[in-house]
Formats: sequence, structure tokens, C-alpha cells
Amino acid sequence: MSVRPKPKRSFWTWGLQADEPTDAQRAAHAAELSVRFDTEIVAPPIPKAEDLKLRKPRLRIPDSLASFCFTDNYERALHSYSADDRAPAVFGQFPSPPDMVAHPRDESELERTLEWCDSNGYVVIPFGGGSSVVGGVTPPEAEAVVTLDMDEFDSVLEIDEISRAARIQAGVFGPHLEDQLRPHGYTLRHYPQSFTGSTLGGWIATRSGGHYATNHTHIDEFVESVRMLTPSGWWESRRLPSSGAGPDPNRLAIGSEGILGVITEAWMRIQRRPVYRATAGVAFPSWEQSYEAARNIVQSKLWPANLRLLDPDLSRDAAGMDGSRALLIIGFESAELPQDWNIKAAVGMARASGGEVPDDEIVIDDGTGRPTGHSGAVGAWRNAFISIDEGLTAGLGLVTGTFETAVTWDAWPALDDHVRDIVGRALNDVCGGGSLNCRFTHVYPDGPAPYYTYAGAYRSGDYAAQQTAIKKAASDAIIEAGGTITHHHAVGRLHRSWYDRERPDLFAQALRAAKKSLDPNSILNPGVLIDP
Amino acid sequence: MSVRPKPKRSFWTWGLQADEPTDAQRAAHAAELSVRFDTEIVAPPIPKAEDLKLRKPRLRIPDSLASFCFTDNYERALHSYSADDRAPAVFGQFPSPPDMVAHPRDESELERTLEWCDSNGYVVIPFGGGSSVVGGVTPPEAEAVVTLDMDEFDSVLEIDEISRAARIQAGVFGPHLEDQLRPHGYTLRHYPQSFTGSTLGGWIATRSGGHYATNHTHIDEFVESVRMLTPSGWWESRRLPSSGAGPDPNRLAIGSEGILGVITEAWMRIQRRPVYRATAGVAFPSWEQSYEAARNIVQSKLWPANLRLLDPDLSRDAAGMDGSRALLIIGFESAELPQDWNIKAAVGMARASGGEVPDDEIVIDDGTGRPTGHSGAVGAWRNAFISIDEGLTAGLGLVTGTFETAVTWDAWPALDDHVRDIVGRALNDVCGGGSLNCRFTHVYPDGPAPYYTYAGAYRSGDYAAQQTAIKKAASDAIIEAGGTITHHHAVGRLHRSWYDRERPDLFAQALRAAKKSLDPNSILNPGVLIDP
Repeated sequence: MSVRPKPKRSFWTWGLQADEPTDAQRAAHAAELSVRFDTEIVAPPIPKAEDLKLRKPRLRIPDSLASFCFTDNYERALHSYSADDRAPAVFGQFPSPPDMVAHPRDESELERTLEWCDSNGYVVIPFGGGSSVVGGVTPPEAEAVVTLDMDEFDSVLEIDEISRAARIQAGVFGPHLEDQLRPHGYTLRHYPQSFTGSTLGGWIATRSGGHYATNHTHIDEFVESVRMLTPSGWWESRRLPSSGAGPDPNRLAIGSEGILGVITEAWMRIQRRPVYRATAGVAFPSWEQSYEAARNIVQSKLWPANLRLLDPDLSRDAAGMDGSRALLIIGFESAELPQDWNIKAAVGMARASGGEVPDDEIVIDDGTGRPTGHSGAVGAWRNAFISIDEGLTAGLGLVTGTFETAVTWDAWPALDDHVRDIVGRALNDVCGGGSLNCRFTHVYPDGPAPYYTYAGAYRSGDYAAQQTAIKKAASDAIIEAGGTITHHHAVGRLHRSWYDRERPDLFAQALRAAKKSLDPNSILNPGVLIDP
Repeated sequence: MSVRPKPKRSFWTWGLQADEPTDAQRAAHAAELSVRFDTEIVAPPIPKAEDLKLRKPRLRIPDSLASFCFTDNYERALHSYSADDRAPAVFGQFPSPPDMVAHPRDESELERTLEWCDSNGYVVIPFGGGSSVVGGVTPPEAEAVVTLDMDEFDSVLEIDEISRAARIQAGVFGPHLEDQLRPHGYTLRHYPQSFTGSTLGGWIATRSGGHYATNHTHIDEFVESVRMLTPSGWWESRRLPSSGAGPDPNRLAIGSEGILGVITEAWMRIQRRPVYRATAGVAFPSWEQSYEAARNIVQSKLWPANLRLLDPDLSRDAAGMDGSRALLIIGFESAELPQDWNIKAAVGMARASGGEVPDDEIVIDDGTGRPTGHSGAVGAWRNAFISIDEGLTAGLGLVTGTFETAVTWDAWPALDDHVRDIVGRALNDVCGGGSLNCRFTHVYPDGPAPYYTYAGAYRSGDYAAQQTAIKKAASDAIIEAGGTITHHHAVGRLHRSWYDRERPDLFAQALRAAKKSLDPNSILNPGVLIDP
């Protein structure tokens, strides 16, 4: 049992250990917050892996798997949480770690691990980056749990330039994937907010939402074929640009969240790196006018790569605007064609809906490399979006979070009203007030994908219960108003009860039957999506 | 037991009874063919329903269902075949008719019919227009077969103009569907070649391919939600523009070909009727250059509505060209925006790949209603495509047919070579020669959807065996060369053995389990897609 030599991820907060804040930085931040909220906030000391008292492993690593399986504190702590339920980690609390973590280095080691778990009835959690915000990789109660970390499957194996597709291993993290495509002039161009800390396999398993705000948004659209190991053997679909042969097998694997199999690789549709770009940030006097503009643009099928809409509060907080106006960020990009016509057409539609943008703030890169989207309100938003400072705030008692959905346009205004009403009340009840803002991350001809961020003012008491109360209010509001419980955060364990109200009962019944046929001993990620 | 009063479809050929050719027209056509092929071809007399000697029904209609269930010759003959296996019909041969045909008028009647069949173990064939070219609605061997014709479910129930979506009953035929949307300024704009004789439910159940040649091509992309009756109860998905909540339930219903349930209605994404149009027909000195152009255009993401490519033989036969050049038909359309820029960009890319089109043959409708696509080679192709004269040629011994696939670009040229080689040889063996041409019906960034048409010179002997020999050669060639057995003709019974080589075995296993959970007595369309 050795310790793994790779660059290490933090076991108590987001990102790499090398990027963790220091105790001093956290103390300084706590002092700032103490002043802001007029109460004493103390930063707990950063936990150390060697000090953790973890439950003893309830299994023994067999010699045949010993070279790639681990039971040390760091490995088990790192795999103890998903991103959403990691709050106790900063306090050194790891009540339910996996009993063993496997890092198979090839398909043979993966097969042997899965067979061993299956024959022993050990629960298996397929694990990519661990960035799930819905408890998707959190060990459930079970007799023994093995987390199967796919990070050794990290290569781009093949590039088919003529078809613009690549065969890519599932455990590769976003930046490393792009590093391997870039020298060839290609990019997957899928940038979920978790990009640096999530993997291709995770994106496929959870139907992640990416870079493109319109048209092909989810990873679903970029999957040409999937290779997946199930307890019953290998599942591999034929590489095809499209087919009409029966229900699409890929669409059963995509979104299966680790309950049907372990994705090992996929043929993915890739892009030529864009050369031409055009961007504009259009300000609107009202939220209503701004979302009408977004609707008109997407219904015209201009298909901008970017069509992000920020409500007035978010435009103020994240894009430096005055708080009275909404901001619609429109962006086009292409490897082949100048995008002047597109941006002008989209801006024309936005202006017709009451939007304002000076001509000289429509930034067009005609292929010469002029930066677009880096200045003004658009640039401010870009920078605000990219930073993640969870390490600084962990354990300081802030009640913050996000939730998201998609809904048809006819139901959208009422959903927005209902969510703001219900979540606003919950923030009042739980935190004595707080903030709630909304943006559109993706926009479809038949409806938007709204994304809400909330932050509660500090109040003492049970932190987890406060988070839960607000999350419950938001989820209830979304389901009541006709939305989906998740547009791109997946179901996992956190969204289960609302998902159960959303999907057809008979689909769950069919999915259970499908799972039982592939995973007869119900070892794969039990409790996610369906009950075993 | 009455005879139904609706406009009647022909029971022995494609289309309505009112459009059937006369015996005299068929005799004249036979005489023409006799000269062309230098052999005597005789047209069998058109069969009459009242003269047919059908197997006695092996069940008795219960009184409770009598008002909408039928056992007369016409109904049973009409539902005896799919379009591909109807050849014996013109000779009055109907060896395997369904025992009863139900035309439920509402969900209650549908429920009662399905329950009655389920409790008696009668096989049920959900039936739309009967235009399947893969035996999808052909009664299999069974103790008793009930065909469930959904043609009374023929209304557009609701239009959501703001979301551009409509709730539509599944049994509506294409023209009647469009008739109901047109007054509101909308269109589904889904025109499979079977449009006049197929239904929304059929399109969804078979993943039909429609009007749009790029981007959103299959009906799949236009389905917002599906309502479906299974033997275990109702399945209805939530109306959503998009979601990331588990595997998409719609994608299990879409393409299920009647084995999981009977689709009764769907919320469909609809379109504003286009106002702006632009079309060009670009000629290429070689087939290779023409498909390179199609690839470049679709990879640039211009997303033309039309991007049909005809090989030199087809360009000669159907578009009046000289036989040395391929024809790429490019079309854009929009309800909101002039399409000049798009067509010029696409034509520019086509010319860069060696294509030729005079500037004055780029036809642009700037919203004033100037006809596009109706003149020259493009217009000739349009007219050739629309006509279907099956009634004239039925039973005259021509060995003709079509097959289609989709394949990634890297594998495409070898697939084309292989198909032409293998099918050419089969035509030689079976017919002593014949013709084979190819077009692209749909084009994707990672590969085309080629569609082949063959016609064998007449030779006496077993007609069905000749058709089967050529179909087998074509299907083998496609699967060997990496294509899908069908891009938009579905699997049915005809494509089963090749589909079995294409889809993951474990997907079939999961689908069988899913079906068993929804249809425990295996009454729904057995033998299609999977074995029970």
C-alpha cells in the first residue's frame, strides 16, 4: 500500500493541494467577514490527512489488486464527499469514507476490480473529478464501499481529423484533455464551471452543460460512441454521426450517473479552434425585455456560441453595472467564417427588444486575434465567473449555493416569480435575509435554462440544516412551476426526491429493469437516480 | 361491425384509393416496360377487397369494443403489410392478415383495447400510416394479432406560441397536421418522403428523418415530451426544453417502434413559417469534390436547411444534368432573417472545393415571396423527388428499392466503394445488370447520411428472392463498412439481423429487460428490434 505520486487534489476543498489557501489567508478572510456581518467568525484550522481518525476499512485489498488500490487516509478522505456535501471536511469530519480507492491503470485492472467487487457484493462508486454537486459520488450506507477513481485513464488515444472526432479516455480532466487536442488544432470546447476539476467520463455520466449557450449545449450532443464496463461485460456503441436504429444506446449511457457501468472511453465530436469571434454586451432597462431578446435571438436560429443573460442584481455584482439593468452577452465564434453578419443580426434583434449597446462596443475579431469579451461589463463577468474561492470560505458559516433548471418559455416568468418568492422567504426564515440572482446559462428555442445563486447572511445554528432548507425550497419551487430539477447538475442523491416527481414512473421502472439486467447484484452507485 | 366512413387508403399500393391507377393505366405502363426490357410484362388486375379470401379471424370482437373494431376484408387487408413487403398485395395475396383492426377514438377506448389484448395474450401492432419499409407493422406469426390503428387521434390539441411548441395527437397524418398548424403561422416542417402517408406517432416511433438536412434532422430533436400507453399504464414525460436529469426518458420512447407502448400524443417543437429563402444548385466535376464541399459546409456550422447532394448518375436521371457532374443543392430559410449572407458563404465554400454555379443562379427570396428551388436542376430534382408511382409499377416485376445509412467521414469513401462494388455485383447476379445511384439526404459534421436507389433490369423468376438478395448484399456491405443499418428507415423486422450486429449486445439485453417491465406479456410488436 503506497501513496500515489500524482499532483494531489485537496481532500477538504475544491482544487489542487498546491492551490489551497493557508491558515493565515483563511484567518484574514474570517476577520473580514466578521466585520461585514458584525459577528465573530473563526476559521477552523486546515485539517491534515495524517491526523484524521477514519473508520477502519471493512475489507482487505487482495494481493492481485494491491498495486493500484489504496486505503490510506488521504485517498479515503478525498473520496468521502461530493462537492456539495463537503462542508464537514474542513472540520476534519469524514464519517463515511470509502473502504478502498482503486486507480486502475488499464481495462484489465478495471475488469478485475469490478469482478472482485461484484463477487463480494461491495458497492462501487465510479469517480471522475469528484465535482458532483448532488452527492453523486458520496459513499452511501453499505457493508463496504469501493471508489473507482478513473484518473489513470487520461489520454486522447486517437484523432480523426476528417470527421472531427477523437477517441478519449474517460478519466481525463478538462485542461489535460485540451492540452492533448491543442497541438492538432482541435478542442472539445466543453467548459462546465467545474472544468479544471472534472473529467470527460463525469461529463458524460452526468449530462454536463458546457461552453455553447445555444444549439448543442449538453455533452450529449458531442458523444459519437461510448465504451463502458458493466458487471455483465462491455458495452460499446458503434461510431456513427447519427442513426435511426432503435432507441439510441448512447442516450441510455449518457446521464446514467454510474448506475449502469463505468465509462472508460468515448469517441467525441471535436471542434477546430475558433479564429473568428464577435462579442457584444447588450444592456436592457428591464429583466423582461432582456429575456424576450434572448428568446427572439435563439428562435431565429442564429445559434450564438454565447447567449448568457444576467439579471440586474447579478449584472451589478459581477459585471460592474448599476443594478437597474440586465446584461445580455452575445458571442459568436467560428474556425471558418467571419462572424460580423451574425453579431450584427443578433444585436439588431436585441436592440429591437429594447437593448442598448454602442456600435463601437461590438467587438469583432476578423481572424487577426483581436481579443473579444475581455473588456467592459463582458470582461468583468468573464473574470467573476472564472474564480472559485471555496477554499477561503469553507467552514466560515456562509449559506451560499446555486440551483438551476430549464423550463418552457410559457412557464418561465411564473417560475421566476415563484422561485424568487419561495427562496426569498426561505432566506428570510433561515438567514434573516440574503441575496438571490439569476442568469441564463443556456437558451433553447422553447425555453431558457435559468441558474440561480443565493447567499444568506450569517446566522448561528445548524449549517447543514440551513443549506438543506434553502435547497428544499428552491427545488420545490422549480418542480411546482414546471421546470426540471436539473439542467446540468445531474440528479445524484441530493435531487432524488424531486427527480422522482419529474420523470415518468414507468421510465424509472424500465431503468430499474435495465440496471438489474446489467448489474444484477446492484453494486453500482446504489441510490443514485433509482432505488435498487 | 360496420365499414369505416373515412377517406380510404389503398389496401394494395401506396396512397389513397382515390389516387390508385386504373387497370388501363397499369396495362399501358406494362406495355411500355415490355418494349423497354424486350420481354412480355403483364399487369395483374387490381384486386378487390370483397373478392379476397382471408383467413378467418382467430378471435371474436367483444361487444364493449365493437363500435371501433373491425374484421372486414378491407381493414384486414390494408393492415396486412408494411410498404416494403406489400408486393404480393397486388396479386390479392394476404396470407397473414391481422385478426382484428381497432380504431380507438379516445384514450379510454385505447386503454380498453390494450387491456383486452393483454389479458388475452393477443399480439398488438401499433399502426400509424403503415408506410414502414422494414416490415415494422407486418403481423408476425402469433395466435392472434390485433392491429391498433391510431388514425382517430388526429388533432393538434394546443399551440404554445411563445415556446413554439404544440401538443399533437400521434395518429395525425403529415398533411392534416400541417393544415392545423398553418392558420396560426406555424409548421412542424418535418417532411419524410412518406409525409402524405405517415403519422406523427410513426415518425417518433421510428426516428424518422425530415426536412432539415443539417443540424436538427431527426424527429428526435423536435420532441419536447411524449405520452404513451404501455400495458403497465401511462408514460408521460415532462415538457422541457432540455434537461440533465438522468438518461432522457424521451430517448427511450423515440425509436421504440411499438415494442414499449402506443404513443398517443406529443408536445412537438414547431417553427414559424419561413419567409426568407435562398437556394443554389452547385455542380461539381467529380463526386469526391462534391462531398468534400458538403463536409466543409456542414463543418463550418452554417446549418443550411437543405444540403442534398446527388451523385452524377442521379443528377442526370433526376435533375437533367449531363451525367458527368454531381449536384449539391444548398438551401437556407428563416422566418426572421434574410439569408443572403448564409447562401453566399456556403456557395463560397462550395466554389472553393471546385463547385460551379453562376451568380445569377443563386436565388434569394428576400421575403417578398420569390420562388426558390423551383427552376433549373434544383427544380427538376424537387419534382422528381416528390412523385411516387408505386401503383403503376406494382407487380410488373421491377427489382427496385432504396437503402440508406450514416457513416463517419473517415469511413465514407470506402463505404461508398464497397457498397457500389457489392450491390453492383448482386445486381449483375440477380438481374443481369442494373443501376445504382447515391444521394446524401442529411449531412453531419462527423459524417454523411448516404441514400442509395437501385433498379434491376427485369428477369423472370422469384421476385421476392431477387429483392432479398439485393437487400442482403446492400445491408452486409453497409455493416461491414462501418455504417448504421438505418439512418431513418428504422429497424422493424427487415433490418433485424444487421441491427443485431450493430447495437451493443448489452443494450439489447437492457432493452429486453425494460420491455419486460412495461409489457410483461410481450404483446407489443414482438420480433421488432429485439426478440421477446
